[in-house]
Amino acid sequence: MSEEANKTKPLVLGLFGFGVVGEGLYKVLAKTTSLNASIKKVCIKHPNKKRNAPAELFTTDADLLLNDPEINVIVEMIDDSEAAYSIVTTAIKNKKQAVSASKKMIAEHLEELIRLQQEHGVSFLYEAAACASIPVIRNLEEYYDNDLLAGFQGVVNGSTNYILTKMFEDGLDYKEALLEAQQLGFAESNPALDVEGIDAVNKLTVLLSHAYGIVSHPSKLLYTGIQNINANDAKVGAEKGLVIRLVAQARKTNDGKVASFVLPQFVKKDNPLYNVRNEYNGVVIKSGFADEQFFYGKGAGSFPTASAVLSDISALRYEYKYEYKKLFYHVPNELTWDFYLKVYVSFEQLQSIPQQYFEWIEEWHSNETGGYLVGVLHVKHLLESQWWKQKGVSLVLTADPFIENIELRQLRKKSLELAGVVV
Amino acid sequence: MSEEANKTKPLVLGLFGFGVVGEGLYKVLAKTTSLNASIKKVCIKHPNKKRNAPAELFTTDADLLLNDPEINVIVEMIDDSEAAYSIVTTAIKNKKQAVSASKKMIAEHLEELIRLQQEHGVSFLYEAAACASIPVIRNLEEYYDNDLLAGFQGVVNGSTNYILTKMFEDGLDYKEALLEAQQLGFAESNPALDVEGIDAVNKLTVLLSHAYGIVSHPSKLLYTGIQNINANDAKVGAEKGLVIRLVAQARKTNDGKVASFVLPQFVKKDNPLYNVRNEYNGVVIKSGFADEQFFYGKGAGSFPTASAVLSDISALRYEYKYEYKKLFYHVPNELTWDFYLKVYVSFEQLQSIPQQYFEWIEEWHSNETGGYLVGVLHVKHLLESQWWKQKGVSLVLTADPFIENIELRQLRKKSLELAGVVV
Repeated sequence: MSEEANKTKPLVLGLFGFGVVGEGLYKVLAKTTSLNASIKKVCIKHPNKKRNAPAELFTTDADLLLNDPEINVIVEMIDDSEAAYSIVTTAIKNKKQAVSASKKMIAEHLEELIRLQQEHGVSFLYEAAACASIPVIRNLEEYYDNDLLAGFQGVVNGSTNYILTKMFEDGLDYKEALLEAQQLGFAESNPALDVEGIDAVNKLTVLLSHAYGIVSHPSKLLYTGIQNINANDAKVGAEKGLVIRLVAQARKTNDGKVASFVLPQFVKKDNPLYNVRNEYNGVVIKSGFADEQFFYGKGAGSFPTASAVLSDISALRYEYKYEYKKLFYHVPNELTWDFYLKVYVSFEQLQSIPQQYFEWIEEWHSNETGGYLVGVLHVKHLLESQWWKQKGVSLVLTADPFIENIELRQLRKKSLELAGVVV
Repeated sequence: MSEEANKTKPLVLGLFGFGVVGEGLYKVLAKTTSLNASIKKVCIKHPNKKRNAPAELFTTDADLLLNDPEINVIVEMIDDSEAAYSIVTTAIKNKKQAVSASKKMIAEHLEELIRLQQEHGVSFLYEAAACASIPVIRNLEEYYDNDLLAGFQGVVNGSTNYILTKMFEDGLDYKEALLEAQQLGFAESNPALDVEGIDAVNKLTVLLSHAYGIVSHPSKLLYTGIQNINANDAKVGAEKGLVIRLVAQARKTNDGKVASFVLPQFVKKDNPLYNVRNEYNGVVIKSGFADEQFFYGKGAGSFPTASAVLSDISALRYEYKYEYKKLFYHVPNELTWDFYLKVYVSFEQLQSIPQQYFEWIEEWHSNETGGYLVGVLHVKHLLESQWWKQKGVSLVLTADPFIENIELRQLRKKSLELAGVVV
């Protein structure tokens, strides 16, 4: 069958960025001739930096790549989401395939990027934009039919997970852990993107489109990060055998809509996310027949990113494109903001907690230095207010946060009976 | 975009088998009308058994399904690999798409089944035949280019893994553990298929074709099961912090060929397979840039199998087919039988060990009740002989079993110096 080999389309690449990822790609492509892909030109920002590649490969003129008819694939790996947007949209309009790892840019412009792909009939791949090397976009797009997808739950930000792990396992303080993550290259250049949950909600935006055909803007989703988690929250969890993870999740509710958000969450030992430590990412996908699959790998760092970019480039040889099946071939799902969550909230000042928002409160501990409660509230109180994101308040989802309606009524009744005692 | 929804092809299914998987499928399809798939007829073996579905759905006449022009998909979930072969090949010849979970049948007839698919231009999907619900076939086929695939290592048989876990964690003896696995529905009806490694090597055969384009017959691969593993092997491992897993693996060697086999192996704590317990399956995939991904889920049982079958049915709506890319679009890889392995061998009788086969022996422990050694031998001595599969001999791969050639020469020299002392 070898005479049939290498029927794939030759790829001529224009690269934007020549950092660790770009240089790594260059080396692998040079070594692996069977990939049938060569880099024609690399656009860089700083022409005077020493590069481990021939000088004639480089240019600072983006148009030289974007307008070169021979270049059929633009690979963008730069750390500037405005520039990335311009590169990718121009590439698509110029009928070039594109590969990108810029989650922020993709999440914020997803609707337009999907439209452009449809209009120009080209493929734009971005597997590295969700969980670096874990092929979670591909699997949500191809393998898990949205009718059969009960939900997913993922640790999608390596930097915050590294920080949480170091804080809770090694007793580092928040700033030390963040610095270590940055030094190891796991953190975004602007740490707020990681620690405030922005990177995670960007990735959730991307995942929602491939999982459920829901195309939203990240700013419209409910999210926070780990900026307010403190050592005592970890201690409370540890007493119950729980760890804290920053979890991006989606879950089909009884009415067929999708509840989705990024929040810190207590995680039990039997949840595969419990073992997702350091810079690793992991996604649990709950599919038909109440079955679960778990995908795990490095979610941050140059090599995992380069690995995903390389797989995307390789897929272009077979003219692979995201079909956005859940959006175009199905009735897309819709987000719902009508559900209840059981949350843990710790506080320094009792008055920072609007107790009237809670349907009921199951646990209540406080002393002169603060305290915590465990209670149930409607998600709209989180969506519409900021009290739970303020300094001195730390909200962590409980391990089983979803309160089904039937259970709700029963429990509410019980809580009303107990109310005088508990609150 | 909803006017574009449900552009998928309606599927009319003929089902073979109505056990737990078949009945589960029937219920899910009836409930999920958006799947656009309906079961027209179910062929069963025992017409008098009570079924939870209308009587007119059932027949014992296979031809009624295979010759019905309206039926465009045959789904086969029976426990008889001869009959399954006949059903699937007839379906393909009759231009019907087919879905099967019969790993034995698929592995033993893979070459012919690939040829038939090519000839008749139909799709035959069998994701359930590798690791039940984990989409490992799909990912090897689509996401991991063989040029970039350094290897994979998987616990692919839920039954043996359940037995190993119960033996080593709960102190059950082999027979008790096997019985428990059978009662829970994790074991094949013929336990030899599981415990002697046949099921695992069948799955390895399937994986090799999608990973590397290597189409082999399972009988030509090197394999054994867990039939000779004993409590003392576990004890030796535990002292070093290792567990034993039955591992199906493939690894690209320095000459670009592929070393592949199913053998019990000591596994370190930092290997994701360490945490694959009970009936779970897990596959570690090593890809470009030395990056690793891990896929994990239930590998045995009715629901995980039904879940994979359902995903295959759903994929047929998009006319998905395995393209066998590594076989047809690339120069397929080749197996190699020229490599060295470092193994642990325990024995009851010293004379059952042909010491002359070992390049060198690093550890040697024996007393009147038997003993064990750790040594290096060429794989051909395993392929061509049976001593290591005999009762009273237990061979377990070490955690880092591959001896690269350079290291080999150095170590051989050292071992020759030490030979008089050690052996």
